Amino acid sequence: MYIGIDLGGTNIAVGLVDKKGRILHKDKVKTRAERNYSEIIKDMAELTKKVVTDSGYTIDDIEWVGVGSPGKCDWNKGVVVSAANLKFKNTPIRTEFQKHINLPVYLANDADCAAFGEAMCGGAKDVSNSVMVTLGTGVGGGVVLNGQIMTGVDFGSELGHMVINFDGLECKCGRRGCWEAYASANALVRQTKEAMDQNPDSLMWKEIETLENISGRTAFRAANKGDVIGQKVVDRYLEYVAVGICNIIEIFQPEKILIGGGVSNEGDSILEPIRRFCDMKKRSTVIERALLGNDAGIIGAAFLGAQYKK
Amino acid sequence: MYIGIDLGGTNIAVGLVDKKGRILHKDKVKTRAERNYSEIIKDMAELTKKVVTDSGYTIDDIEWVGVGSPGKCDWNKGVVVSAANLKFKNTPIRTEFQKHINLPVYLANDADCAAFGEAMCGGAKDVSNSVMVTLGTGVGGGVVLNGQIMTGVDFGSELGHMVINFDGLECKCGRRGCWEAYASANALVRQTKEAMDQNPDSLMWKEIETLENISGRTAFRAANKGDVIGQKVVDRYLEYVAVGICNIIEIFQPEKILIGGGVSNEGDSILEPIRRFCDMKKRSTVIERALLGNDAGIIGAAFLGAQYKK
Repeated sequence: MYIGIDLGGTNIAVGLVDKKGRILHKDKVKTRAERNYSEIIKDMAELTKKVVTDSGYTIDDIEWVGVGSPGKCDWNKGVVVSAANLKFKNTPIRTEFQKHINLPVYLANDADCAAFGEAMCGGAKDVSNSVMVTLGTGVGGGVVLNGQIMTGVDFGSELGHMVINFDGLECKCGRRGCWEAYASANALVRQTKEAMDQNPDSLMWKEIETLENISGRTAFRAANKGDVIGQKVVDRYLEYVAVGICNIIEIFQPEKILIGGGVSNEGDSILEPIRRFCDMKKRSTVIERALLGNDAGIIGAAFLGAQYKK
Repeated sequence: MYIGIDLGGTNIAVGLVDKKGRILHKDKVKTRAERNYSEIIKDMAELTKKVVTDSGYTIDDIEWVGVGSPGKCDWNKGVVVSAANLKFKNTPIRTEFQKHINLPVYLANDADCAAFGEAMCGGAKDVSNSVMVTLGTGVGGGVVLNGQIMTGVDFGSELGHMVINFDGLECKCGRRGCWEAYASANALVRQTKEAMDQNPDSLMWKEIETLENISGRTAFRAANKGDVIGQKVVDRYLEYVAVGICNIIEIFQPEKILIGGGVSNEGDSILEPIRRFCDMKKRSTVIERALLGNDAGIIGAAFLGAQYKK
């Protein structure tokens, strides 16, 4: 049995996962990300012990611990090089965790873990080559080739920072025109606001009570009720998403592309336009929704040892 | 020993390659691409026999034949699915070739063969993960991960058709804003012409005798002589190249990116600006010139059996 830890800016989630990828038990605590890394990692270890005990097992039943962390992860050293949400900087997750629990500790980026979880036990378990794209606050991506997370010389893939519009919008990363600047949920909120500003009669105004309530769902909801402006926002947004998806097909030609993250809850109303834009009838790649939701990160982390164990 | 065949729109080049990747002997004939595939493939086989005999060997000394072809190649079936330059359409290279010489025949796209040749015996032989970008008539690319050509469900990677400007120039492929439409030698010629049209005083006019003589080198030559407009063309062109190179780094984080094709003959005067644009000091990826020139295709094709043999 394995422990998978999904370390996020808000919560630390720990799951006990069996060899078939089933979560036998899971629990979570607040990350309180402003704290020192040693306190956060101590909480990860404490919660691990609790999850194991609450399930009726002991630490001796666990083969290894896998951790999915935001940011850039050096899996060889077991170090989080940087993670904006956590104020981590060259943080030695592995050695720090092992002060509390003496087990092998494997580390990877959280988007890579989610892709790996889907590839091992979720929407892509029937193929060996898949890409998972997470449309959330940012645009995350993980690539699994021949059943293994594709990792480069520094870190994993940063699909969200592929430039799709070289003279375009500034991105947080310092470059211009990154996919994330157009296709993230944050970008959709910005696009929605701009359209609402210019169209005071749009039904989108009826979907919210205050401007702060604008969300990634506002335009989708209004469009479903027949709002032309809302539909335009949705159409253009899905084109931005599809440009990046097409690029992923040209670059990797994977068997499957899975779309996850909050926006993917819109289901077929986002998948169909993307498939049309990418002209999928001509291609062998399949575009589907991710299946495991928030559990993908725990399951992928739990399976890291299967990839990295030497 | 192996045979590597570089099938091009102009020439068929055949090389006898030893296990260390040295070309012991090579020869070429005109492709005469307008012909029926069976005649072209017969010529490939005839030239193979000639190269083997001329080197003092016999066909029994050869372990396998590798073919690099333009277009989309189905390596499992040994079929060229389509190749515009050759009027090939679902052309069964393997079975047709074996009518003449009964040896295992392996097939891959020519850009992938070049990348594989550089990875096995050229500029990337010291690393396991590399990407080769060929700036020629089009923009070709091949990706080698863990020492193997990255192949997707349909064909290999089409890096040149990664969109870098979604509302941009039309590409031959039908999409808008592909990298190839900005970073190929053809694109550079177009950019040069446009600048010359607008600047009748540019030194670029002195570099050519007639408009048909404009080449990928015109702007570089004028820039070297201090022409401000020529320098602007070069700078902007190299930015277009660098946008795609940066994307490749974000996507693959390879150990090395090699740049080949005609434009790469400009050497450090193109590499340095690209490295600056991509801010390579912050990254572990190394950008260098490809080493094997036109031989990369023959050598990579000759080594295909090492990847595909089962």
